[in-house]
Amino acid sequence: MSRLAIREAKPEDSKVILNFILELAKYEKLEPEVLATESSIRDSIFGPESSTKALICENNGIPIGYAIYFFNYSTWLGKHGLYLEDLYISQTERGFGAGKALLKYLARIAVSKDCGRFEWSVLDWNQPAIDLYKSLGAEPQNEWIVYRLSGQKLLDLAG
Amino acid sequence: MSRLAIREAKPEDSKVILNFILELAKYEKLEPEVLATESSIRDSIFGPESSTKALICENNGIPIGYAIYFFNYSTWLGKHGLYLEDLYISQTERGFGAGKALLKYLARIAVSKDCGRFEWSVLDWNQPAIDLYKSLGAEPQNEWIVYRLSGQKLLDLAG
Repeated sequence: MSRLAIREAKPEDSKVILNFILELAKYEKLEPEVLATESSIRDSIFGPESSTKALICENNGIPIGYAIYFFNYSTWLGKHGLYLEDLYISQTERGFGAGKALLKYLARIAVSKDCGRFEWSVLDWNQPAIDLYKSLGAEPQNEWIVYRLSGQKLLDLAG
Repeated sequence: MSRLAIREAKPEDSKVILNFILELAKYEKLEPEVLATESSIRDSIFGPESSTKALICENNGIPIGYAIYFFNYSTWLGKHGLYLEDLYISQTERGFGAGKALLKYLARIAVSKDCGRFEWSVLDWNQPAIDLYKSLGAEPQNEWIVYRLSGQKLLDLAG
């Protein structure tokens, strides 16, 4: 019998989170891009200046997935929003409602914090995920493109 | 003579920030979407739980533009990033390097906080902005689509 529970992540979960990140990266065909380590996760998510939060989803006490989120901001609304950076459920644990339970848990946090929006991003080829999001009533923000500056180009601009 | 200065915004700047938001919304043809008020800006950006920050750009002591940002997170890097939500310079004050100065200032914050990335979004028809961002070496993240849940649909998911 499946018994799902969601709890806030603790620094001791850093290794579990790293393993989920690696599994997710494999699914997204982006594994070589993962530079995170157990200690970089502990220092960044659980560090004193962190504005990032993590949740662990367990089935009968065993971690089966995670979510990482932070609060973004809408100038139009004059309110914070909740932005879900990553959500992942182990492949063998899918189909039992764990992903939906995490989304519902996050939606409750968003509402309790008076957030105007709950947002996340999806790769444009990930149709199963897109179908789920549309079924929840989420709307694609097709007219917006994210631009990213990193590495040497970021250092160049900083001067 | 133009004398640019950039400083952190204070709660007393909430009205100035609202005026810039309204000007920017007009430029983006999204003015009817602005529900923010002076007090919602003060309460959200400058509230005790806020993870959002604002900068004011001045020319000879007069506010001519602003930036609003927060820290996002990259699970691939195991690091925070800096996300620029809004940047705006008054129309009559453009062409003197104020926008570039704000971007440089933000890039320095990103580097000093060990952020792996500096990101922002642009409307796909805003070619002058896209040209500037490309000239800085920023790369479009074309394969990602943001999904947004808000209003009654968000309440429905929260249950």
